[in-house]
Amino acid sequence: MAETKKSLLTEISTPVLDSNDRVTIVGGGQVGMACAFTILTQGISSDVVLIDVDEKKMQGELLDLQHGSLFLRNPRIDAGKDYAKSANSKICIITAGARQREGESRLNLVQRNTDIFKTIIPQLVKYSPDTIFLVVSNPCDVLTYVTWKISGFPKNRVIGSGTNLDSSRFRFLLSQKLGVAPSSCHGYIIGEHGDSSVAVWSGVNVAGVCLRELNPEAGTAKDEEKWKEIHKQVIDGAYEVIKLKGYTSWAVGLSVGSIVRSILRNSSELHAISVNVKGIHGIKEEVFLSLPAILGKNGLTKIVKQKLEEVELQKLRECAKMINEVQSGLVI
Amino acid sequence: MAETKKSLLTEISTPVLDSNDRVTIVGGGQVGMACAFTILTQGISSDVVLIDVDEKKMQGELLDLQHGSLFLRNPRIDAGKDYAKSANSKICIITAGARQREGESRLNLVQRNTDIFKTIIPQLVKYSPDTIFLVVSNPCDVLTYVTWKISGFPKNRVIGSGTNLDSSRFRFLLSQKLGVAPSSCHGYIIGEHGDSSVAVWSGVNVAGVCLRELNPEAGTAKDEEKWKEIHKQVIDGAYEVIKLKGYTSWAVGLSVGSIVRSILRNSSELHAISVNVKGIHGIKEEVFLSLPAILGKNGLTKIVKQKLEEVELQKLRECAKMINEVQSGLVI
Amino acid sequence: MAETKKSLLTEISTPVLDSNDRVTIVGGGQVGMACAFTILTQGISSDVVLIDVDEKKMQGELLDLQHGSLFLRNPRIDAGKDYAKSANSKICIITAGARQREGESRLNLVQRNTDIFKTIIPQLVKYSPDTIFLVVSNPCDVLTYVTWKISGFPKNRVIGSGTNLDSSRFRFLLSQKLGVAPSSCHGYIIGEHGDSSVAVWSGVNVAGVCLRELNPEAGTAKDEEKWKEIHKQVIDGAYEVIKLKGYTSWAVGLSVGSIVRSILRNSSELHAISVNVKGIHGIKEEVFLSLPAILGKNGLTKIVKQKLEEVELQKLRECAKMINEVQSGLVI
Amino acid sequence: MAETKKSLLTEISTPVLDSNDRVTIVGGGQVGMACAFTILTQGISSDVVLIDVDEKKMQGELLDLQHGSLFLRNPRIDAGKDYAKSANSKICIITAGARQREGESRLNLVQRNTDIFKTIIPQLVKYSPDTIFLVVSNPCDVLTYVTWKISGFPKNRVIGSGTNLDSSRFRFLLSQKLGVAPSSCHGYIIGEHGDSSVAVWSGVNVAGVCLRELNPEAGTAKDEEKWKEIHKQVIDGAYEVIKLKGYTSWAVGLSVGSIVRSILRNSSELHAISVNVKGIHGIKEEVFLSLPAILGKNGLTKIVKQKLEEVELQKLRECAKMINEVQSGLVI
Repeated sequence: MAETKKSLLTEISTPVLDSNDRVTIVGGGQVGMACAFTILTQGISSDVVLIDVDEKKMQGELLDLQHGSLFLRNPRIDAGKDYAKSANSKICIITAGARQREGESRLNLVQRNTDIFKTIIPQLVKYSPDTIFLVVSNPCDVLTYVTWKISGFPKNRVIGSGTNLDSSRFRFLLSQKLGVAPSSCHGYIIGEHGDSSVAVWSGVNVAGVCLRELNPEAGTAKDEEKWKEIHKQVIDGAYEVIKLKGYTSWAVGLSVGSIVRSILRNSSELHAISVNVKGIHGIKEEVFLSLPAILGKNGLTKIVKQKLEEVELQKLRECAKMINEVQSGLVI
Repeated sequence: MAETKKSLLTEISTPVLDSNDRVTIVGGGQVGMACAFTILTQGISSDVVLIDVDEKKMQGELLDLQHGSLFLRNPRIDAGKDYAKSANSKICIITAGARQREGESRLNLVQRNTDIFKTIIPQLVKYSPDTIFLVVSNPCDVLTYVTWKISGFPKNRVIGSGTNLDSSRFRFLLSQKLGVAPSSCHGYIIGEHGDSSVAVWSGVNVAGVCLRELNPEAGTAKDEEKWKEIHKQVIDGAYEVIKLKGYTSWAVGLSVGSIVRSILRNSSELHAISVNVKGIHGIKEEVFLSLPAILGKNGLTKIVKQKLEEVELQKLRECAKMINEVQSGLVI
Repeated sequence: MAETKKSLLTEISTPVLDSNDRVTIVGGGQVGMACAFTILTQGISSDVVLIDVDEKKMQGELLDLQHGSLFLRNPRIDAGKDYAKSANSKICIITAGARQREGESRLNLVQRNTDIFKTIIPQLVKYSPDTIFLVVSNPCDVLTYVTWKISGFPKNRVIGSGTNLDSSRFRFLLSQKLGVAPSSCHGYIIGEHGDSSVAVWSGVNVAGVCLRELNPEAGTAKDEEKWKEIHKQVIDGAYEVIKLKGYTSWAVGLSVGSIVRSILRNSSELHAISVNVKGIHGIKEEVFLSLPAILGKNGLTKIVKQKLEEVELQKLRECAKMINEVQSGLVI
Repeated sequence: MAETKKSLLTEISTPVLDSNDRVTIVGGGQVGMACAFTILTQGISSDVVLIDVDEKKMQGELLDLQHGSLFLRNPRIDAGKDYAKSANSKICIITAGARQREGESRLNLVQRNTDIFKTIIPQLVKYSPDTIFLVVSNPCDVLTYVTWKISGFPKNRVIGSGTNLDSSRFRFLLSQKLGVAPSSCHGYIIGEHGDSSVAVWSGVNVAGVCLRELNPEAGTAKDEEKWKEIHKQVIDGAYEVIKLKGYTSWAVGLSVGSIVRSILRNSSELHAISVNVKGIHGIKEEVFLSLPAILGKNGLTKIVKQKLEEVELQKLRECAKMINEVQSGLVI
């Protein structure tokens, strides 16, 4: 081969393998692959690395993605179980983790995932000491805290995908009810990514017109139009999809892709993401919960202080306490 | 609800639900979903319909995709088992079909899939009489013929994804061997989408420099650089991926997406796709095989007549005969 | 030539020249060309027609754009002075019009442009009776009315680009002041596209947090932080750019591109655009002013009824009266 | 202001201003602006700097682009005459230069532009010592040499846009004649960007079918189908556009955008660009001419050695001599 290649090409300089936008995804299941495929098809990064213990599956996913290189502007893609492949990543997305066993307590699951993270995070830190961690695995908020603790990174470089997805579900449901595109229906789900999430009804608006101005009871139990149902559907959304198709993948992939783009393009866009909330909204615990926050090249730059109602604040604080308890029981 | 919506919005005209770029995908398995996700993330169409008998799974996929609407410029997505949803599609992609049972003969599989197509195609024709059929299910070439027969459509409106994917794999492998992007390594795999495909080595080139000018034996058994191995890897590619991850999805989704874009944008781009080849390259049978062809808004417009070597022509003709035999045994 | 082409290609069907997303731009000056280039580079339409009396310039622009076809997925582009080229357009964008002469009264200018529109609009209607008009020429609001009158089209199919651009300038300036991306700083400039525009301060928000909650005097003369300055800068923006570079082009091209995309993709996104406001916000005159509105395939579908303050309402109504007076003096 | 912003946002880390994909464009005329607008609308870079002595115009262009930030995912844009703004650019595009005066000799023009480059290049080198130079100003090949000399950079980091544009014009014209998309009509214009360019007819092909196989005289004077005319039209293309609209802009902007993308995404794509050709095709002079070449993150990595005919080689060598003579008369 050397001969034909040599007679075809004169080398002027050695191609560079390193890139400025490497994104590593740990965990090659349905979620990890949806993240990877979103990032590649939307041209968000030109350099994606997949890490998973299941080397055989990784090799299959790698080949399958590479076979489509022609349609993706020839990104660099790599996959395997060796963390050395992740070296110099700008962002490390963690989608790995165990699933709840039948009869297993939640705390036990968290500890099992913490143990998994204890093997993952130090490896990633070793090869990419300046990276930004984006935790997607569940329970997202606790595992973001765990990642922060294990890595020893500053607060701006450890975030969780949190309620960026819940907010997207919320805006889609508002969109359906109003006949207005989700990108024009504004509203945030904050707090825990899960059953205790908080819908900030006071801020829900279309073109600056707050829903509450038109319907002061929107989002409350008294409301006859039952807007509150939408928040319930958001919470049930993941369960519903899992019940119907077995897992969630596309929406979480798209949600993660949007976060990665804001970071790589240094665009200062707002996302509801899981951040260290100690000292905000009267929360005293060192926990991670989702709040609207601004992302840039160095990760988290600013958190938006929303005007929350007493009931919302209370819910957040209770949630913080509960999460803190879970965390205090963990061996990190 | 009516009240809040009414006080927020004044309706000037009724929103139109129909679109000019509806794409229906029949079959919601890994391949169908990778097609759908590619079409949505790359903004190829703003209106995608999924049809599958497994209504529960369809509902799950629909919700999962809709939950990401915010990140996709609010496409219209629908899914279910009712073909009425597919009405007025510009393109109908068929990914449905049975898999080979252990011990089952290939002919038997083809007949089973033909029987499935006999229930699918008339329904699609009924709701979209002017649509273009794009067959992805395997064996792709025979099932494209079957679709053509059942639909009664003209030749330009029935194509198979054929070796568009094989060619993409081929170009990726050339790319790896030369250090040049796949989009700059030109070459076509034609003929059967499968084990009997033909690599047109005479046309393989980079910047108009034919590989054969540099290495006259490239692609032959005599070649010491073993370029022929690449074609073998193309053929083994799908098997390899299936062995490693259980199925192929991403590359076929991207390949189908590229075909759909060329049609919807009326761009006259070339793709190796499965077309009715009777009368071309001395083929006498009414069969479908892949050749480089030009696509536009009305489907297939032109086929490129490559200068093939005797051995390549022979392989194509044998393949045509074999496929014709399979077809003559079918009850369509 | 026929011979080589014939030996290369077998024609299966005749290529179709018509498309489903034709956009015609009337006026090939800096604004018209920025619109065309945005639509082509962002892949918003695959079929763009330029119409201008200056046939020579049109021919030059056509060649220059076509020379870049390779980088644009081969769109169909046409240009000239013959309106027949515009046939079957989904959208007709009007950027043509005279500029104010020294010493000329504004009314006189409007009449001159009305006279120009009397030659343009009927030609466009003749060739695309179902099109949607998007008026960009200034004074935008009056000329949108003039287009509505001349065309006899229903309200949903005649809109002006209005304050979509002013709102984009406003959000950029908010963005600069807050360090948050413009897409995350929400606010609308409504009313006249020009000196009498209205900034709806009550709705300005980031993540649902209204500026007015943090600073009740934001946007008023009393405010020590001088947010009001930003609205002044919006109004002065166009003048400033014209003074510095001679004309405005890029931002208006991008603004128009975003409107065209929402229509062609039927996305129900909100834009501040010039619409017939009779009966809204207590306006009695048959005039066009910008309000947040929802766009789809059939043009304008809904208008958002913002909660405006008395001073804002008054400004809108005065503006409506003034524009009505101008209109009543026109010979249409 | 500080107050409202402070009550809205909690700062966690200071936003980073620097980026990994900064592109500086020197020269803010029609060509420079078309480059900038292409790069921004196609999302090729998120950080663009414009440098021009005409500070007033620069300020106008800056404002006009920034007013469209909302539609561009909030890129960082800067403009002015101070080269400090260009610091840490990955690529510096030079579009600045004087135009030919009436009666002025070509050599004189080259010297004048060389003198301008002597003020530009050292400033860029000072602020971005690791940048890649992409020269667009004419005469492109000589000025790429001049840039190489002044900068003292290695060969891989100094290229000219050369015949990337001529090749795109060529492929568009082939496309028109064949009814096949330009991206599927392959062919290269090499050598001088200008009147002495060479069309490599032997490599012109569609799907690997060489034109010369179908018509052995294609591109020669004897050919009855007059394919040679197409090369003439390529050469006349720029003059034609200048005659008709006064300057060229869009196609060159798109062509430059494609080169910049290949570098920033490290994609190994091929482009006909102006490179140092000493030692290739028997050229002995230290001159820059366009050849198909591979681009990556570190600029030029490989040059494709096409099989040229004697007449083509001769033309290249003569061209090299002529350019060398011009260069030897220059005071650099």
